[in-house]
Formats: sequence, C-alpha cells, structure tokens
Amino acid sequence: MTESRSLIEPRTLKGFRDHLPAQALARENILDIARGVYRSYGFVPIDTPALEYLEILTGKGSDETDKQLYRFQDHGGRDVGLRFDLTVPFARFCAQHIGVLGTPFKRYHMAAVWRGENTQRGRYREFMQCDFDTIGTTSPVADLEMVLVVHDLLAAIGIEAFTIRINDRRVLSGILHECGVADRSTDVLRSLDKLGKVTPAGVAAELEAHGVSADVRTKLLGMAQLAGDPATVLAALDGLVGSSETGRTGVAALRSLLDGVQQAGVPEGRVVIDPSIARGLDYYTGIVLESFLDELPTLGSICSGGRYDNLAGLYTKQALPGVGASLGIDRLLAGLEELGRLPAKETAAELFMVHFDTAHLADYLKIAAALRGAGIPVEFYPEAKRVGQQLKVAAKKGFPAALVIGSDEFAAGTAQLKHMHSQQSVTIDWHGDVHVLVDAIHSQLQAIKAGQ
Amino acid sequence: MTESRSLIEPRTLKGFRDHLPAQALARENILDIARGVYRSYGFVPIDTPALEYLEILTGKGSDETDKQLYRFQDHGGRDVGLRFDLTVPFARFCAQHIGVLGTPFKRYHMAAVWRGENTQRGRYREFMQCDFDTIGTTSPVADLEMVLVVHDLLAAIGIEAFTIRINDRRVLSGILHECGVADRSTDVLRSLDKLGKVTPAGVAAELEAHGVSADVRTKLLGMAQLAGDPATVLAALDGLVGSSETGRTGVAALRSLLDGVQQAGVPEGRVVIDPSIARGLDYYTGIVLESFLDELPTLGSICSGGRYDNLAGLYTKQALPGVGASLGIDRLLAGLEELGRLPAKETAAELFMVHFDTAHLADYLKIAAALRGAGIPVEFYPEAKRVGQQLKVAAKKGFPAALVIGSDEFAAGTAQLKHMHSQQSVTIDWHGDVHVLVDAIHSQLQAIKAGQ
Repeated sequence: MTESRSLIEPRTLKGFRDHLPAQALARENILDIARGVYRSYGFVPIDTPALEYLEILTGKGSDETDKQLYRFQDHGGRDVGLRFDLTVPFARFCAQHIGVLGTPFKRYHMAAVWRGENTQRGRYREFMQCDFDTIGTTSPVADLEMVLVVHDLLAAIGIEAFTIRINDRRVLSGILHECGVADRSTDVLRSLDKLGKVTPAGVAAELEAHGVSADVRTKLLGMAQLAGDPATVLAALDGLVGSSETGRTGVAALRSLLDGVQQAGVPEGRVVIDPSIARGLDYYTGIVLESFLDELPTLGSICSGGRYDNLAGLYTKQALPGVGASLGIDRLLAGLEELGRLPAKETAAELFMVHFDTAHLADYLKIAAALRGAGIPVEFYPEAKRVGQQLKVAAKKGFPAALVIGSDEFAAGTAQLKHMHSQQSVTIDWHGDVHVLVDAIHSQLQAIKAGQ
Repeated sequence: MTESRSLIEPRTLKGFRDHLPAQALARENILDIARGVYRSYGFVPIDTPALEYLEILTGKGSDETDKQLYRFQDHGGRDVGLRFDLTVPFARFCAQHIGVLGTPFKRYHMAAVWRGENTQRGRYREFMQCDFDTIGTTSPVADLEMVLVVHDLLAAIGIEAFTIRINDRRVLSGILHECGVADRSTDVLRSLDKLGKVTPAGVAAELEAHGVSADVRTKLLGMAQLAGDPATVLAALDGLVGSSETGRTGVAALRSLLDGVQQAGVPEGRVVIDPSIARGLDYYTGIVLESFLDELPTLGSICSGGRYDNLAGLYTKQALPGVGASLGIDRLLAGLEELGRLPAKETAAELFMVHFDTAHLADYLKIAAALRGAGIPVEFYPEAKRVGQQLKVAAKKGFPAALVIGSDEFAAGTAQLKHMHSQQSVTIDWHGDVHVLVDAIHSQLQAIKAGQ
C-alpha cells in the first residue's frame, strides 16, 4: 500500500452481513446441538460444492428460484450457479453416490445457500440451512424419527414452549376427493393455507370463486380449523375422508405416528395434528410438519419438512423416496433474540486471567496450561494494562469469572477469583501448587454455573 | 418432471468435489477439535459473506489472485467476487467493526474459500480455511499464544510426530543487512527458500547470479541450514546478525518465545528454530511459523502463520498489527489419509440397534429414547430386514457394537450386544428394565473403547 492511495470503503453487499462474535457464537452453539441430535439418530454429515453446473440447479427450479439464482460463467466458460438450497445438490449427490452409500441413507447437511431475493422483512441473500433426510425407505419409522429429531432438537436448544404441527398430504387428498374438488386441489389448498392471515369468511369467498359449493366450503373450513385433543381430531378426520382409500391410509399413518411419538416419551401436547398444513404442494406426498415457538407464533415455522416420493428423478431413474426436515437456523436465532433468550456473551471461554505483572509471565503460562489441561478454557490478557481496565473487558465480554494473581498474591501463594456477576471476590489459598489452584477454580466455576 | 424428459447428468464442476460421510465426518471432527482449542485460548468465532464487492477483494490481490478470482455481476449490476481467502474479508471486517469490538481482538474463522486455479496436484477450487488471529496488540504474549495454539491443536488432533518450525523476519533482515545484500532481499530470500527442492550448490549459483559474493553465499547457506539444539542455533544467529539492531531484536524475540513455549509445558523438540523460513515476503514482519508431519515432510506445512504490522491498511487509517495462523485442514486430511490415520467410519453413532420385529416397535422406541437420554447415540434400522443383512450394514459403516433384541429376548428379558470387531456377542439380562439395559450397554461400549 502506498500512502497516497485512497482508502477502499469497507462494506458488505446489500442483503449480506457479517456475524460478530456474540451472534456467531450463538449460531455455532445451535449448529453444535443440531449436529449432536442428528448424530444421535445415526445421521451422518455430507458436503457438496457451493458452485454447481447451472443445469443441475435450474433443472427443478421454478421461475421464482431461477430469477433469484446467482449465476455466471466461470474461467472455463461453463455456466455455473451458487446453490439456492441443499435439496437440489442432495438430489444430484444421491444420483451420483447412492450406489456406493447404499439405502436407507441418513444424512445431514449444514451449509450456506444464496438467493438474490428482495431484502425486505429481515431476509438475507446468504443464509444457512440445516437439513436432515432419510433416503431410500418408505418405512414409517423414518417418518417417526423425523418428528422425534425435530422434537429433540428444539428441546436440546433449550426452547421450553414449542409445538410441532403435523399433517398428512394423503388426508388432504382424500378429503378433497370426497368433496369432489380434487381437480382444483392446488387452488383449494392455497386458499386454505391463507387461514390465519385471512379471515375464514375471506377464505370462504376465495373458495367460492374456485367454484366450491357452500356445504363443501363449510366442511373444508371446519377441517382446516380442527384442533385440540388428537383423538378427537383423528375421529373427525376419519369422518371427513369417508371411503377414500388414500385418505384412510393418511389418517392411519397420523394415528400410528402419534402413538410412536408417545411411546418414545415425547411430552403430551408437543406434537399436534393440524389439518391446515399442506406445504410444498408439488413435492410432499405423505406426512408434513411445521414447528412453532409458542411465544412467537407469527415468526412462522422454524423447522419444516415431510415425506416425498422421489428425490432425484431429474438425475437418475432410481426411485428414491425419502423424508426429512430443515431447521431454519437464522429465523430461529431471530426469534430467540426477539424473546431475549440469546446470551449476550462475546466469549466461549469461562475464565479471564488478568495479566498483572509480566515478570510473572512464566507463572501465568503454567497456570493457563494447567487450566486448559483440565478442560477450563481461559483467556489470558496479552498486556499488563491496569487491572480495572482488564476487568472491564472481562465484564463487557460476559466472562463469568476473572482470576487475579498479582505479585503479592504470588508471594503469599494466594489468588483472587472474582465472580463477575456478583462482583464478589473469593480468595484461594493454593500455596504455589498449580493443581490446588486449578481444582479450586473448577469448583468456583461449577458453583457460578449452578447459581445462574 | 415429465416422463419423456431426458435425465440431467449428475456431476460436479472440475476442481470441486462432494464430501461423502467418512470424509465429512473426519473433517467435522477436526473442525470441532480446532474450535475447542481456539476457544480454550479465548478466541471467538466470526463469519463474513462468501460474496464481497470486487474492489474489496482485488484491493490487495496480486495478479495471480486476480486471475483466480470467481467474479461476476450480480442482479443489481454490482461487480462481486467469491472470497479467495479469509484474511482479506477479515481486514475489511476489522476496518468496519473494530471500534465496537475493541482491541486486542481474538477471532477464529472456519469457512470455504474459492480459487479458480489449476487443478493439478490434488488442489481444489473450493477448500476450507481455519484461521485464528489476535489483532491490535504487539505483545509477544500473542505471538507465543499462536505457537501454543498450533501445538495444542496438532496434539489434540492426535498427531504424535510433528514439528513446528519458527523464525523471525527481523533475524533475516538483520543478517541480510549485515551481509550488505539488504537491497536484494526478495531475490535472496526466494533463492534460499528453494533449499530442499534445489541443492545447496544450485542455490549458491542462483545467489551468485544475484551478485552475492562467495563468503556471503557461504554465510547465508550456513544460516539457512542451521538446525538442532535451539541454544546452539540462537548462538549462531547472534553471531550472524552482528550489530544489526533489528536482527538482535529478532533473535531476542525467538529466545523468549522458546522460553515461553517451554514454560507452558510444550514437550522439547516440538518447536524448533528454522532460519530458512521466510513466508509471505511482503506481509510478515516478525515471527513466522510452519508446521510439518514428521512422517510426511513432503506434504508441506499444515499450519502456517506469523506476525504482521498492519492488517487493514487498505480500508482504514487505524493501524492494526496482529499475529495469527491458518490450519490447512484439507492438506492435513490428505496427509492423515496417506498415513492411514483416518478412521474409515461412516457413522458418528456408537450403537446400531437391529430392527428385529416391528411388533416390538414401541419397545425399540423406548430403548432408543433411553439410550439417547443417557448420551449414547444409536441408529435404529428403519425396516425389519433379515438380521444378517442389518448386521452387514452395521459392519460396513464401522459401528463398534450392535444391539439385537428379538421376540425371544424380549420374552426372556435379555439382549445380545454384538461387538462388531471381535464378532463376539454378550448376553445382557435386563429383566425388562430399560435403565438396567442402558447401564449395561454403556459399560460394554466403554470396554470396547478401552480395548481399541
């Protein structure tokens, strides 16, 4: 750099953003929890390139996705694009590798995707998806596991009040068939999907415009608003599907799914039937699922998915049925932030060690190494600034505790452990024995955690 | 999809690749270890967008990087590019946010970068970097921590034989100055850097071509080949830097760095002085570091870094000195694979539960939930296929153990736990009490781990 050169303005592209430490830590922690839950059911990670041949990406895209695609020609003149979801790359991946991997195949994939969409309403052009799917089996156990994974995931994240709403596309098909409107199913389902945003009367008017008769309108609106005790909802659905074979299969599937959820020990009320849920009209064919924070229902679904008949039909003749869901981690983080449930911590270390006197550097290094050896992450301030200034940094970053050992303390074989929240200090007598010091700090940190 | 439509060939772009589960698991495990080590020193995560304004990326680029840049115009007609490293985005990030974050600032960043380079020699156009840096301090403690982090990281990954080679750019400057070739330092350092690939005689010939006299050539070649006991190397460097102030500062820095490394308990021989290391000629100004697998020195450095004077001079007038290093995770994985040190596991779960009889689904679900509740990840096969076929899957994926409970076992309150490696089965009497079963499985899995 020459001195005369003018500065380049540091900025990010519209719709893109940096993640500062507090935000990045919160996201990393949730990804870590998701990884643990996915793995606990036998799902394994895969990764695919951010860039794909354009034809792979556009093969299945709607006009909407095509418009949003980041596409260009690479150095070799190839038409390429940045993935806009993880499903299309997974379909391509399965078409290529499923022979080696074998079925059933259970994978998770946590990665960024890009869409050049309008940036209103907190939408970003780069965001992360956390998908998990079971491919190559039609076993209802896979459907059940999807629900259990979503449950365990939201519970492990520490959300106390959430509801998983399930439905089965076959129930909807059966009812539409029984009502004689199967030929207008897309229009009808789109209208019903507006319930909540549009009044029942408004939805009824839309249905009328689609030529749906008055008694069928009443039936459909009644169905879409069914809620409460699962046994009652199932009984009502039994009546609505009538003699439709598809519909009855769907109701039976929902019934045994709820049984399984209960047998696996999921608390009552966490999983409910919501006959208004349709999702991805062209894609899902069996169970569909959405999940909501009870305290923030307007946030929308934070984890959604379902069963589909054929994942990779564009790329292979091998039929690959599957079931899976996706955690909307950015939406979830936004929700947790809105609810004040995100820790404001800017550190992942538990202890801040004040750099009191560089003459004792060797001692500080020994203590830090012993703490890390005992599994206690510690940040050692690199400069011997004023203690007050260092403690201010520790407080700002959200450290639970700070360790202060000055020349006097070293001489006396003591240390001050400051609880940052209460601002109380505890004196530790360690007589120059690092193990004693580490044990005492360990106990103090446990006590702080327990007290929180 | 219409039936008549022809299939799209499933393939990845040249220079790009999928990560299958075994590979993805190995990478995830190393990233997890890196995260733990970085955090244990107080480093915190950040993230930046994959796409940046082109001017941000090209501001500092060489012709070489410019040519390799993936660049295009986005929907808004902006010139944009995919990041080719994590340093340039970090510089831009610091110029924007350092006022809020404060210094010293310690961050790690683990993310993909893209370079359209030639794909020979196992190089990929998409690869991952794992950087950590301490910004805004010139304290030697930050330099020391860089070395300690690299050490702890390689040790935590489980590499037994590795060497961290350090040098200080000021030592090189001082010696070149003393030798009267400071005006040709770039040429001279480039020639010396070829040692190992080119014979000493060949390097000497190059130096002669740069007008370096015979006795200086001898001196420089002697310096670059210094090795062995650190005290001896330091004494030799003391002599070589002569009266150069810069050189003496560099030697003193290396000396106290080695002291600190020892005080922090790093085993002898893990960190050595290698005066031939120069690295990033225009960038680094103090300590420089490279690390090698002893069993595979030709692999090149798997973790490299150093100290620099000013990170973000292109974007801000604020001087931001720093020190940091980057783990070459893809190179490391290639090395571990070559050495046969990568586990061939295609699962992260510890237990495979055979699906013997769907009539017992409720029992399997209860057992699986109890195992997961006790922290034991378990894959439950979704279909009641033949037991032999299921066990084959468990063996192929590398599960350490499989749990077989058929109708007879449920009736008798027993279970078979099969050790997949030894093919021995252990009978567990659990009398229908899931807690007893979980405890017994836990002990068995511990025993298998201990026996490996």
